[in-house]
Amino acid sequence: MKFTKMQGCGNDYVYVNCFQENVSSPESVAKAISDRHFGIGSDGLVLICPSDKADCRMRMFNPDGSESEMCGNAVRCVAKYVYDRGIAHKKTITVDTLAGIKIIEVHTDENDIARTLTVDMGAPVTEAAEVPVIADSSPVKDLVLSAYDSDFTFTCVSMGNPHAVTFITEDVEEFDVERFGKVFETDSHFPRKANIEFANVISPTHLKMRVWERGTGETLACGTGTCATVTAACINGLSPHEPVRVELLGGELTIEWKESDGHIYMTGPAEFVFDGEYNL
Amino acid sequence: MKFTKMQGCGNDYVYVNCFQENVSSPESVAKAISDRHFGIGSDGLVLICPSDKADCRMRMFNPDGSESEMCGNAVRCVAKYVYDRGIAHKKTITVDTLAGIKIIEVHTDENDIARTLTVDMGAPVTEAAEVPVIADSSPVKDLVLSAYDSDFTFTCVSMGNPHAVTFITEDVEEFDVERFGKVFETDSHFPRKANIEFANVISPTHLKMRVWERGTGETLACGTGTCATVTAACINGLSPHEPVRVELLGGELTIEWKESDGHIYMTGPAEFVFDGEYNL
Repeated sequence: MKFTKMQGCGNDYVYVNCFQENVSSPESVAKAISDRHFGIGSDGLVLICPSDKADCRMRMFNPDGSESEMCGNAVRCVAKYVYDRGIAHKKTITVDTLAGIKIIEVHTDENDIARTLTVDMGAPVTEAAEVPVIADSSPVKDLVLSAYDSDFTFTCVSMGNPHAVTFITEDVEEFDVERFGKVFETDSHFPRKANIEFANVISPTHLKMRVWERGTGETLACGTGTCATVTAACINGLSPHEPVRVELLGGELTIEWKESDGHIYMTGPAEFVFDGEYNL
Repeated sequence: MKFTKMQGCGNDYVYVNCFQENVSSPESVAKAISDRHFGIGSDGLVLICPSDKADCRMRMFNPDGSESEMCGNAVRCVAKYVYDRGIAHKKTITVDTLAGIKIIEVHTDENDIARTLTVDMGAPVTEAAEVPVIADSSPVKDLVLSAYDSDFTFTCVSMGNPHAVTFITEDVEEFDVERFGKVFETDSHFPRKANIEFANVISPTHLKMRVWERGTGETLACGTGTCATVTAACINGLSPHEPVRVELLGGELTIEWKESDGHIYMTGPAEFVFDGEYNL
């Protein structure tokens, strides 16, 4: 099986071009190849397949073999692959995912190589019942939760998955994300648990954020978490409806919550790391 | 740069055939490719180079770019590479390392593929001053160290690097290696720190072991640590001078301390994982 390792903000997957390759049991392949010592090593497997509805179809499999819907960092990599390798050499790429058809704008350098890509992430959802978060009114922007004698005020947003964002004054780089993330993830206010974002406001258009992903722990970057963080900043009047840079452990994303259509647009890098061949 | 990912007991390196490739600055390449999210992902870089003293020369670089002397799991992979890919199709392969010339016996399957390999790891050193460990007499087999109100009795052995081995009655699979390993690694009895091995004796020829590597933490396997463990078992009359199977988190090694020449022989697997190409 020929494959390509790609990463976006450190979120790394094994990508297989299923216009040319056939992967008959992606669940077991995902398990085998994701192991970082005995396999290729990755956050999962992404198949880039033909589609009659879009330029390609993306199927994602987690390291445990389960299929997942969508990942903002992965869909940028898919669009770069499709553009740079000539599957669809267009500045607007459509990708069919389990979360619907995603539209990605390709931004190229002087050599016509895709450098950054903008994904329409759709409209954020702030209705408490839909996040879901247990609260009396929406949007939820003053949910106070406590741990280890410290209070944190959360704003709750769904980007298809539940997020709770808190703006802190302590430098997030020094903050003990694991200690507090673990507690809040499973707080009883979150019936489906929640991804927890801790953020600093450096300026209205410059945030710094670290994320505790539900069921996973701290990660280098989380596309939906970054969108949720900027949504929360806008709701609280901390950021404008303009492009906002967000620094993450794994890199930087620029998020804009456009007033014109109410959608969130995420712009960020995608990189080829290496090409390989793995014997199934 | 063409490369091959290989692993032995889960100890995984990026191998480059320098009979064909030229790696001009291996220190910086090792740093870049070792990163598990932004690079190829590995425990380091191994160059397989021509030698006028042996079938090949092995150079090893850690993820921080520093050069290291030798690794028992890596040298088995080098010998498999050299055998299976025809650089030297001989059942006895010699590898020139910074720790001297190593001799490896190749054991093949019915398709003439190298499956397991035996490395002459040399003679263990038990002189206290050479391990080094601060003690009045040698060999050191009754060094009692305490942590968290528990006493452990250590046997100290050097395999070119310092090891302290303790045989415990609690199942090592359940044991808190991190909690105790951390404390003993830096005990004042060990002037150059020590790798700490916690082992169970299942039978005289069957041990189970987990290792805390100095400066690294717990790893899936440690070749020299496994040799040190069997040496300690022999010294204490727990194992005979015969092949002893040692179960590790990352696989299984068979160690024999031969009475005939006093050397330790380590037999274990080596596997190709995938081939790739990385743009430097």
